[in-house]
Amino acid sequence: MKIGSQTFSFDNPPSIISGFSMVGPKEGKGPLGTYFDRILQDDEWGESSFEFAEIKIHKSAIQDLLDNLAMTPEQIDLFLGGDLLDQIISTNFTARSFPICFMGLFNACATFSEALTLASFLISSGNFNNIICSSSSHYASAERQFRFPLELGNQRTPLSQWTVTGAGAVLLASSGSNIKITAATIGKVIDLGIKDANNMGAVMAPAAAETLTAHFKDTGTKPSDYDLILTGDLGNFGSETLMMLMREAGYPLGHRYKDCGVLIYDKAQQVEMGGSGAGCSSTVFSSYLLKIMKNGLYKKVLFAPTGALMSKMSSLLGESIPAICHAVVIERV
Amino acid sequence: MKIGSQTFSFDNPPSIISGFSMVGPKEGKGPLGTYFDRILQDDEWGESSFEFAEIKIHKSAIQDLLDNLAMTPEQIDLFLGGDLLDQIISTNFTARSFPICFMGLFNACATFSEALTLASFLISSGNFNNIICSSSSHYASAERQFRFPLELGNQRTPLSQWTVTGAGAVLLASSGSNIKITAATIGKVIDLGIKDANNMGAVMAPAAAETLTAHFKDTGTKPSDYDLILTGDLGNFGSETLMMLMREAGYPLGHRYKDCGVLIYDKAQQVEMGGSGAGCSSTVFSSYLLKIMKNGLYKKVLFAPTGALMSKMSSLLGESIPAICHAVVIERV
Repeated sequence: MKIGSQTFSFDNPPSIISGFSMVGPKEGKGPLGTYFDRILQDDEWGESSFEFAEIKIHKSAIQDLLDNLAMTPEQIDLFLGGDLLDQIISTNFTARSFPICFMGLFNACATFSEALTLASFLISSGNFNNIICSSSSHYASAERQFRFPLELGNQRTPLSQWTVTGAGAVLLASSGSNIKITAATIGKVIDLGIKDANNMGAVMAPAAAETLTAHFKDTGTKPSDYDLILTGDLGNFGSETLMMLMREAGYPLGHRYKDCGVLIYDKAQQVEMGGSGAGCSSTVFSSYLLKIMKNGLYKKVLFAPTGALMSKMSSLLGESIPAICHAVVIERV
Repeated sequence: MKIGSQTFSFDNPPSIISGFSMVGPKEGKGPLGTYFDRILQDDEWGESSFEFAEIKIHKSAIQDLLDNLAMTPEQIDLFLGGDLLDQIISTNFTARSFPICFMGLFNACATFSEALTLASFLISSGNFNNIICSSSSHYASAERQFRFPLELGNQRTPLSQWTVTGAGAVLLASSGSNIKITAATIGKVIDLGIKDANNMGAVMAPAAAETLTAHFKDTGTKPSDYDLILTGDLGNFGSETLMMLMREAGYPLGHRYKDCGVLIYDKAQQVEMGGSGAGCSSTVFSSYLLKIMKNGLYKKVLFAPTGALMSKMSSLLGESIPAICHAVVIERV
């Protein structure tokens, strides 16, 4: 049911049955290490390229999710996912391994909440029972695609972020869990003219502010109505920018605001402004967030990953970077 | 309502209100030239790069669609679209120009039917009234991204296809037209091990066969129940392959089968196996198909675009090419 210009509440809120996260060694050594389901010792994982490693991680996260639930691919109605690689090959080649209906998505690092939103509509409508949502990224495949290959040894800039190596996947279903997606706010594309592909926080914070403001207006809620407001990968600079923008918008986020990109690494890990990538929000969601919600620490969470919608080509052509944010409300009911 | 393993019928079938297609000069000179809504004299259209030209074409198709309907972006609930460029920048930069909620999709040349399918679920569920679906491609931006820049003067291979320069967009709504999307079959990823990125027909025909076979089985229909079965861009070789596969599957398609990639160019235009690209099916759908259905020539059409899910990187890494096909049933009711 539409409850505002961009926000919908779900008549039959889908259940989040289970999540699975698989991350690289660096993420495993970070503050959320104990929450991740599987941590690799080596981020190449025996593959001949970083892209193949990312595909293997993505595929394994979904296989392990199914195995943990003792389910077969045939029991899944739809797979919705995406990633940052050109033509989302991590997800396409993952989908190739499973006999599941597939739809590929791309909203950069907001792809995971795009998937959760679409899956919620599809399940709430009564047409689908089980949908898997996932996204992935890999530090080395992202660096060589968007910036420079690691072999070049380029210096990192102070406002840059570290692309998370990992994949997160969840199973949504029509019933079966007391953790549900109860509402979603769909974002619009925001571009304030920033061209620095090494400052994703500055690019994406305005999109998060637009969607969060729309969400609070549409629902008549305020930040203090949520136990946690969690963005995807704004990092330290982007998080501070968002907090400033939300104070100006009349919705100060306060201490209940956190960012997956800030949570996932320790400052001592030399990641500059923190984590980023389509795998950042999905791994933190599928492990940390679901586990603490199951433990009852948080009852109502606003989860709002953001995405920077540029390509290497658009940056080379001198274009500024558009961004988007989709938010979903997760409730323990 | 689910009516089979991969097929759904829509309880409240969405109406196709209107379509708009904008194509390059070569497409304008082809057999469907009189059907297209706007034909460019120059496929660079005053832009400094082919990518910017593709973005301008995509944006203009949507602006003209809105103008023809005397509608504003504020009246549109959602924009679903995609294209072939890395990180779908043609669609992202188009979405940047409109204050409309946006979700980016990628299933290569099957993106347009992916959008139609998702939009149909969203409208049928009663949550959305007006959704724009679009996709685009550009011969020169696709060649330099997936194969070689045109300036290199590479010889074209006999089984290659010509990427359509153009964008097609449609407006779907909860009511308002007697042309409706009544059912959809969602595809699975099929990969028979073909590695030739210059033979898209061979790559995609098995995916079309899988989805069409599932559709006929799920619905209990046969090819002769449709006035037209229209694939997106299999080209001559892929079309013949599909007809062979469907004969073997017990569903011979016969004379009612056509392909947008075969229809859009004349053999004298030197396009080898015919047209391809995400703009091929969307321009032919938004102009030719909608116009002949409004004229009453066809009452029930099965529209089944296919997509090849590779990237330049996956081809360089020696991978075979996965493919997918989503089909929708369009009926004049």
